[in-house]
Amino acid sequence: MEKVYIYDTTLRDGSQAEGVNFSLEDKLRIAQKLDEFGIDYIEGGWPYANPKDNLFFQKIKGMNLSHAKPVTFGSTRKPGKSVKEDKQIEALIKAGTPVVTIFGKSWDMHVTEALKTTLDENLDMVYESVEFLKKHVEEVIFDAEHFFDGFKANPEYALAVLEAAVRGGADWIVLCDTNGGKLPHEVYDITKHVTERFPQVKVGIHAHNDSETAVANSIMAVLAGARQVHGTINGIGERTGNANLCSIIPNLQLKLGFKVIPEENLKRLTEIARFVAELSNMPLPRNMPYVGESAFAHKGGVHASAVMKKALTYEHIDPSLVGNRRKITVSDLAGKSNLIYKLREFGINVDENSPELLRLVERVKELENEGYHFEAAEASLELLCKRHFGLVKDYFDFDAYRVLIAKRRNDSLPTSEATVRLAVEGVDEHTAALGNGPVSALDRALRKALEEFYPNLREMQLIDYKVRIINESAGTSAKVRVLIESGDSKRKWGTVGVSENVIEASWIALRDAIVYKLMKDEEEAS
Amino acid sequence: MEKVYIYDTTLRDGSQAEGVNFSLEDKLRIAQKLDEFGIDYIEGGWPYANPKDNLFFQKIKGMNLSHAKPVTFGSTRKPGKSVKEDKQIEALIKAGTPVVTIFGKSWDMHVTEALKTTLDENLDMVYESVEFLKKHVEEVIFDAEHFFDGFKANPEYALAVLEAAVRGGADWIVLCDTNGGKLPHEVYDITKHVTERFPQVKVGIHAHNDSETAVANSIMAVLAGARQVHGTINGIGERTGNANLCSIIPNLQLKLGFKVIPEENLKRLTEIARFVAELSNMPLPRNMPYVGESAFAHKGGVHASAVMKKALTYEHIDPSLVGNRRKITVSDLAGKSNLIYKLREFGINVDENSPELLRLVERVKELENEGYHFEAAEASLELLCKRHFGLVKDYFDFDAYRVLIAKRRNDSLPTSEATVRLAVEGVDEHTAALGNGPVSALDRALRKALEEFYPNLREMQLIDYKVRIINESAGTSAKVRVLIESGDSKRKWGTVGVSENVIEASWIALRDAIVYKLMKDEEEAS
Repeated sequence: MEKVYIYDTTLRDGSQAEGVNFSLEDKLRIAQKLDEFGIDYIEGGWPYANPKDNLFFQKIKGMNLSHAKPVTFGSTRKPGKSVKEDKQIEALIKAGTPVVTIFGKSWDMHVTEALKTTLDENLDMVYESVEFLKKHVEEVIFDAEHFFDGFKANPEYALAVLEAAVRGGADWIVLCDTNGGKLPHEVYDITKHVTERFPQVKVGIHAHNDSETAVANSIMAVLAGARQVHGTINGIGERTGNANLCSIIPNLQLKLGFKVIPEENLKRLTEIARFVAELSNMPLPRNMPYVGESAFAHKGGVHASAVMKKALTYEHIDPSLVGNRRKITVSDLAGKSNLIYKLREFGINVDENSPELLRLVERVKELENEGYHFEAAEASLELLCKRHFGLVKDYFDFDAYRVLIAKRRNDSLPTSEATVRLAVEGVDEHTAALGNGPVSALDRALRKALEEFYPNLREMQLIDYKVRIINESAGTSAKVRVLIESGDSKRKWGTVGVSENVIEASWIALRDAIVYKLMKDEEEAS
Repeated sequence: MEKVYIYDTTLRDGSQAEGVNFSLEDKLRIAQKLDEFGIDYIEGGWPYANPKDNLFFQKIKGMNLSHAKPVTFGSTRKPGKSVKEDKQIEALIKAGTPVVTIFGKSWDMHVTEALKTTLDENLDMVYESVEFLKKHVEEVIFDAEHFFDGFKANPEYALAVLEAAVRGGADWIVLCDTNGGKLPHEVYDITKHVTERFPQVKVGIHAHNDSETAVANSIMAVLAGARQVHGTINGIGERTGNANLCSIIPNLQLKLGFKVIPEENLKRLTEIARFVAELSNMPLPRNMPYVGESAFAHKGGVHASAVMKKALTYEHIDPSLVGNRRKITVSDLAGKSNLIYKLREFGINVDENSPELLRLVERVKELENEGYHFEAAEASLELLCKRHFGLVKDYFDFDAYRVLIAKRRNDSLPTSEATVRLAVEGVDEHTAALGNGPVSALDRALRKALEEFYPNLREMQLIDYKVRIINESAGTSAKVRVLIESGDSKRKWGTVGVSENVIEASWIALRDAIVYKLMKDEEEAS
């Protein structure tokens, strides 16, 4: 098993994605996770361009990473200046990491048009910068920016740039498809050319996803001899993103037999992906390969019943290898067989032809037509099914709620007040509460009314609250779907509510979240 | 320029995606668009499995498609039955489309384990089904299900299945990577083997994205001689999705020089992608190659200023070729140069070193730290900049708002009532309105107060309303960001509001949307 080194740039290139802004704390938490996972290199930032990255490099030294090497990123020296006087190069050394990566131009047009210098001076910049850095740090990686475009435009020059880095003592030369436009066969051919030309140095690949082939390009480069792959968790990055390590790692390790990360760690892949999704505030697309919620979901009735029989038949890998799980979803395409599977999960055994089952299938279809999605709200589905079979108690008897939001000229925030009236076992409760917003006010008033009777509700927390407009063309008059994720020390569960009114949709999802908690606690106690 | 045929299965395989439910009307609208775009084959559904697909095939006949051929999908006959008596085959002919696609098993294990029949009987099923259908329809396409897995397990048998389809008279044999697990080099090698073995028949590729290489696999199959590519718009489909036609088409046409769709139509690609995203209720990820909002976005200060100088330098293609556009975004990584670019767009010329500009940069950073994102809310950014330079009038003087949402035991929906107090040029207005929800009530009360003074507000519509929780870990007490898209007959614009209170965040975005409309109308009138 040959080793392929993984170079993570989530914290640098990944942070260039629209909508991503990592705090220092986020960056340190991610670095810790990446290290535990078995990533080889963690690129932390460009201290000269972003002085706050210096803090990251200071802190990371104290973390005693178990495996990963932190990497400082920067560029070659400026044209016409001595490398020793270059502040940017100095900042790279000061960062104090064992590894430094510098990028240099390898596309002749960029040298003359963007850098405004001569082709020869650029070669000197590459050689001198690498050579100087190599005296001060253990390992120097040279990123050949726009290498593939450069190679196509002027192969001799692009190779001369690599040659200069090799002469300077670079440990790795990394071929960058900076604009992300290359296709897999070109990446293979050009990388092959480079690995054959420079057998004395190790080669890496840095791909972007503009042609939707970044994962494939990385794989093809490895097949052509590259042994270092740059990418980001979930493929976050500028424009269309960087090569997605969450697909590259299992592709290399499970399908091509390379040694990438310690075997026992691969099952943490899904957890890492979701962790970075949280911190980067970029929700993981459901359909993300390997780690998405739907990556091993089966919807069609035919497939779902086949999968139940023999998993290998309809899955490219066993989902548990990457810490994900199989999912049978219910939908109007699914038919009875999926619902029977779900009911079995909920502990309900029902005859395939029972009229009750058929009525439940109808009811699910109706609700789906109204805009309910149970795929991310299994607790609501479980309640729906159990209510259908008379298995859910009435924990309280609803009477009324009211929410008032008011703001006056000089208020910085409006006040939000909710009142709830309900009865538990014949005892009336009428509560009021304030909140930061209408939904939190309603949540608090409802809990206030119930906690006296059901003290275990105090353990329960609202983890996530999502609002989706269902029929967007109707603007604020459209229906909304609210998804709530709740949790206690033992579990997490999702509930859903749909209404034209966002408060009512939230109420439905809040109510289900609470009833689910009460039901589960009772089931476990019995 | 050699032709590659595009076979769209958005309406069949695409509709298997979690969360997608096309109505009949949706399917017809999508088919119309695909035809206008220049897609060659449109697979409409499997009438035997989903009887409502029959309606689609009836209606599509009346639409007189200008180019695309509608296709009915189904399977080979059942084991041990005569093809003439097979109801499923009969349904395929009854659908009345000029083209029929049937799938058959090509993985030996599937024949014996899933179909529970002999390998020989399966070959007869394929041969007889194709042969029979070919007598009744113009064109028969044979989808070899699990072909790549089948070929790896038992190449002789997998090829014998193709052979049976070819003997039956299939016009195309399509190699399906049904589980989506294959990597590009394998797809190339195996497809090459097939195209060399069967020079007398045309070959196609049907890829799924489970290894995140569906686009690459499709491209590699074309390079190996396949001339029909199956996929879906935006790659929607079961699990991780099908091969994404929105990337495959420009890759083949712009980068490899194949003739795919009429050249003048390619610039409609982004529009088609967004149209299908709307109807499938699967918002287009920002970072989607070619068609996403960020596909040509430039955030980093260095890049953005280089892009302004010379676009080719940092873009793999000219975005206008696919109907997308370049976008310079503002963010805390961007520095002054991006903001100057934006200000110029807004018609404000300002000196690079002016203290006012520096204060504006600071203000943008502060707001971004609070959770504002201007990337999808350019109107709010324009208002912010123009207010900063004193270029926005006070169109009204806010005094107070109040929103009340109340529900009682027997109400199916709560009532939502809003009141607004404000003054326009010293004239007090105090209005009240009901709405389907709190935000629509507030919107109506605000408009009621203003329309008397500004009648052109009547042309303005709310197009989209999105809520995003910023700090998810805090549950309902977290901050929310509301994005509103508004439009009139001339333009669309996005505004943003951030607050701990969803009503206040909506208010901020609503207010900006209205002020923007008033300002733009005045600017144009002057």
